[in-house]
Amino acid sequence: MQLSDLSNGLDTVWVVLTAAMILLMEGGFALLEAGFVRQKNAVSIIMKVFVDISFGALIYYVFGFALMHGKDAGGLIGLTGFNMGGDLTHLPANVSHDTFWLFQCAFVIAVISIVSGAAAERIHFRAYIVYTIVMTGLIYPISGHWIWSPNGWLAKIGMIDFAGSAAIHALGGFAALAAALFLGPRLGRYGADGKVNIVPPSNLPLASVGAFILWFGWFGFNSGSTLSATNPGIGHIAVTTMLASAAGCAACILFTILRYQKADPPMVINGALAGLVGITAGCAFVSDGAAILIGAVSGIVMVLASEWLEKRKVDDPVGAFAVHGISGSIGTLAVGLFALPGAASHSGLFYGGGWHLLGVQALGLAVVAVWGFGLTWIALKAINLWRPVRVSSDEELVGLDVSIHGVPAYSREHDFIEVDKLRAP
Amino acid sequence: MQLSDLSNGLDTVWVVLTAAMILLMEGGFALLEAGFVRQKNAVSIIMKVFVDISFGALIYYVFGFALMHGKDAGGLIGLTGFNMGGDLTHLPANVSHDTFWLFQCAFVIAVISIVSGAAAERIHFRAYIVYTIVMTGLIYPISGHWIWSPNGWLAKIGMIDFAGSAAIHALGGFAALAAALFLGPRLGRYGADGKVNIVPPSNLPLASVGAFILWFGWFGFNSGSTLSATNPGIGHIAVTTMLASAAGCAACILFTILRYQKADPPMVINGALAGLVGITAGCAFVSDGAAILIGAVSGIVMVLASEWLEKRKVDDPVGAFAVHGISGSIGTLAVGLFALPGAASHSGLFYGGGWHLLGVQALGLAVVAVWGFGLTWIALKAINLWRPVRVSSDEELVGLDVSIHGVPAYSREHDFIEVDKLRAP
Amino acid sequence: MQLSDLSNGLDTVWVVLTAAMILLMEGGFALLEAGFVRQKNAVSIIMKVFVDISFGALIYYVFGFALMHGKDAGGLIGLTGFNMGGDLTHLPANVSHDTFWLFQCAFVIAVISIVSGAAAERIHFRAYIVYTIVMTGLIYPISGHWIWSPNGWLAKIGMIDFAGSAAIHALGGFAALAAALFLGPRLGRYGADGKVNIVPPSNLPLASVGAFILWFGWFGFNSGSTLSATNPGIGHIAVTTMLASAAGCAACILFTILRYQKADPPMVINGALAGLVGITAGCAFVSDGAAILIGAVSGIVMVLASEWLEKRKVDDPVGAFAVHGISGSIGTLAVGLFALPGAASHSGLFYGGGWHLLGVQALGLAVVAVWGFGLTWIALKAINLWRPVRVSSDEELVGLDVSIHGVPAYSREHDFIEVDKLRAP
Repeated sequence: MQLSDLSNGLDTVWVVLTAAMILLMEGGFALLEAGFVRQKNAVSIIMKVFVDISFGALIYYVFGFALMHGKDAGGLIGLTGFNMGGDLTHLPANVSHDTFWLFQCAFVIAVISIVSGAAAERIHFRAYIVYTIVMTGLIYPISGHWIWSPNGWLAKIGMIDFAGSAAIHALGGFAALAAALFLGPRLGRYGADGKVNIVPPSNLPLASVGAFILWFGWFGFNSGSTLSATNPGIGHIAVTTMLASAAGCAACILFTILRYQKADPPMVINGALAGLVGITAGCAFVSDGAAILIGAVSGIVMVLASEWLEKRKVDDPVGAFAVHGISGSIGTLAVGLFALPGAASHSGLFYGGGWHLLGVQALGLAVVAVWGFGLTWIALKAINLWRPVRVSSDEELVGLDVSIHGVPAYSREHDFIEVDKLRAP
Repeated sequence: MQLSDLSNGLDTVWVVLTAAMILLMEGGFALLEAGFVRQKNAVSIIMKVFVDISFGALIYYVFGFALMHGKDAGGLIGLTGFNMGGDLTHLPANVSHDTFWLFQCAFVIAVISIVSGAAAERIHFRAYIVYTIVMTGLIYPISGHWIWSPNGWLAKIGMIDFAGSAAIHALGGFAALAAALFLGPRLGRYGADGKVNIVPPSNLPLASVGAFILWFGWFGFNSGSTLSATNPGIGHIAVTTMLASAAGCAACILFTILRYQKADPPMVINGALAGLVGITAGCAFVSDGAAILIGAVSGIVMVLASEWLEKRKVDDPVGAFAVHGISGSIGTLAVGLFALPGAASHSGLFYGGGWHLLGVQALGLAVVAVWGFGLTWIALKAINLWRPVRVSSDEELVGLDVSIHGVPAYSREHDFIEVDKLRAP
Repeated sequence: MQLSDLSNGLDTVWVVLTAAMILLMEGGFALLEAGFVRQKNAVSIIMKVFVDISFGALIYYVFGFALMHGKDAGGLIGLTGFNMGGDLTHLPANVSHDTFWLFQCAFVIAVISIVSGAAAERIHFRAYIVYTIVMTGLIYPISGHWIWSPNGWLAKIGMIDFAGSAAIHALGGFAALAAALFLGPRLGRYGADGKVNIVPPSNLPLASVGAFILWFGWFGFNSGSTLSATNPGIGHIAVTTMLASAAGCAACILFTILRYQKADPPMVINGALAGLVGITAGCAFVSDGAAILIGAVSGIVMVLASEWLEKRKVDDPVGAFAVHGISGSIGTLAVGLFALPGAASHSGLFYGGGWHLLGVQALGLAVVAVWGFGLTWIALKAINLWRPVRVSSDEELVGLDVSIHGVPAYSREHDFIEVDKLRAP
């Protein structure tokens, strides 16, 4: 046994375990979304999460990974690694290419899961499968290459995004916004008389446990992004992650007490997640105090953004844009303000680094936002030529569980259904 | 600090963490099964999972572990290690015997949990406790010895089963089939006029999150079976696990869309699990492409097997035989086809190894299937002499939660129940 | 790469992963409690768990950690480490101070979550926030210092509490008893005519999965308390943890079958937890056989304690005192009986160590119990001067979800609620 064998073994189990934690986040997304939507659509949203994992993983294996982490061509795209073949010698050598792929695969699945929430209760299942293929095979891998390939053009001008406030959350969040706008609001969500109707979450305990599972997975998400167990920053990353999420959650508790005279459960759930999204870019590079501030601001702005979207009559059933798009943006920009000297390649504005890093972060964020929004819009437009992306009014009123999948989420009263009614609609 | 101390420490935490992940799978089984059965039996099935863990762990400690991993006697049985005492020097030296036991204990609990699903909604709780003792103390340990003890007779003729497609899943699956047949279908499941009635799952969101938890645990199940963190195959094992489950799930989505004109949620849930079961034997020995194929075939055949069982009027409430028995069989045989040269002791048929390995795998599978089915049938027959294994019709119609455990799974309307009604039936 | 770098890296990822597992236990607490209470209070109890994590983590960062693990002053209190600043050179050097804090933070959150269960369905949310601040900033850190600082006065006289049967569970449990007594029983729980009414758990499947998640987290809780991955006791700790919980659960199954003629689900759930609480102090120091005994006794006594509390008309909705207070006490004392020679600083009574250790454990336990109970009572009394700690009868009858948080846990029938009704009460 050599020291290097041991080191590689340690790095491998670290990456595999944290990848598994990130994959468990899909269970968190499923619960969060199923709890937030109406029960007539609870199965349908979970089925989309199954699409995220299954189609996402396969497409990313065959295609997406190569575009993202293959050998760089002009800072724009990777071109080796289709089916994990070809020259991948530029990848980190401390873990096998296989292992590296697994961790990246967990990430791509998270991206597409963000979008599923915004499209809930009205996107057609088959259209969603096609969009998943486009997102995991094309949209995310290309912008991901720009940021995370050492030769990507955004990386080269100095953009910093440790675990993906921009590459994952802002991208997913702006894609979610495009999907919400493209699909339009759910029937009845905004009354003809300008009245705003709230869809009461069907199952808040499930949504909450979804958040707790996401929280757990985030320690894999952020700390695991070191891709090496001997990275001395792991403890600090985990602590800033903890503090930012606690701050986001506590801020939402206090802010909603002030604003609505009650601690608002859905906002508190999303507040914890907003704090997590906000710290994702900077977790390795900012101080504990900055992490608390980033988390608190992410939480409060998420509440305001949710209200603003509602006034604009945008319908985002689980708050995907407010949580991932807005907090991801805050987190990306915050690195430009708070990056500590010596921690990253540049210091932030408040630590003597001047405006440079903040400008780069803002540029990178704008690029990612436009890319995620624009490509999603184009993809949905194209899919719409093939078949309607949105279900019919009848299907929507009945609920997608029964109309699209033929089975209700909860069956309480009937002991039996005749098989012919279930399997031959 | 020596290098060897560090290596042993690393191996120990790897085994402990993956064992904990496998134990968490019990939460997954509980949710999956509670979600699939009717709500009047949701607590009763979860109570069986508590029996699996508690009685399973204790019996395996006192008795089963010795038969399985004790010093070999004639390739048939182990005979040391009762209460972890006696000569166990033949066990791997990189982790303590304690630690080794914990991992194996997590496995035995999984085996018995497979059977609980097939027996759901009609087996009597006390009979189930006795069966659990027989399964975890006798049935599984003995066939497990044949396959996994280096001196076991199936191991010696070259059977390969990395993490237990045969030793765990096929054994559990064929035992589940025996239980389903012995108990007979649930009242009303098959109408007198030959009509097939479907029991609608009471809570598909819970069943789904059960699947996600099982998925997470499987990374511990397969990767952890290396029992050493410096095994260079860990990354590859995790990746084949991911790809096979994604393929099983995606295949079920597409196949049920083709076959039923809708993506069928229970089938999709079970499809992901079928892919996981299928890859369990070969995860360390097959290529990524073979993993995708094994997963996809496991998923599709699981659907067909479920339909076939239904036509034969077998009632397996959660699909335990189709998922674990059938996919476990596919996975065991697939090693004989796809084992890569150099990866295992023999190559598979498609890699120049000839028919030898496939023959051994088929023999081992047949032995395990007959053993699991036969011993379970005998055990239930014997228990039935003591007391009826199946609950009375009245108890079944009321539901086991109230009739056997005195409390409903979900209480929505009543604020209180008088204590006398609850505790003195 | 030096051997020491690798060793520190390994210890760091071990501590971070086990800390994340302990934090996931909050999801377990949330489900367990939401499942045990009535559905009209299911969100409200989960919101308290969000308070536990968010306020708990922040207060412990700013204040509590310093009192507990700061440089010792007279064996009574720590006085450095506010905001993680000041001299902390006395902390273990194998992981960073950051990493050490994270693990301790996970512990403090567990303590306060114990109390939340006993106060369920009737404590006011704002009062609970203030109590959380007092518990996590003051009560737990100070008694924790006595036991776990190497210079703490209880540590110095030889008290042994490996992972916190006393420091965490007995403290939390006696604080929970104080809260239950201070608040008084829920309306209708005890009839005017002396009749005892049981509150049927609203969702036993959720409560069960809560227990499974707690079980998983406990492997992090106990094994992770080594704070070093090369501690040779890790395997043994995990095994005693497994055996004690299995024994607690199995004992409750058999005992409730004998006593109530049925395996009682809530008792079985709590039995597994009681076994876990009971082994927490001694997991590193007792034999496997002693672990089984401790677990079984903890389970059975928990049942008897629950009955006794009910006769005394104490209302503890989730059994927090019986599980954590009583089993924590048993576990603390059991170390005085069963500590193996050489494992701890003193042997237990049954291993030739005489009465000394048992006396010390009893003294330490008494101190912790009085401290936890007394300070909680004083804190609630003080908060009550500011605003009523208990909600009004009207709020309680409606349920805290709607009356305090403005939203029901489960919305099944209505597709929409007007926003004005939800956000401006």
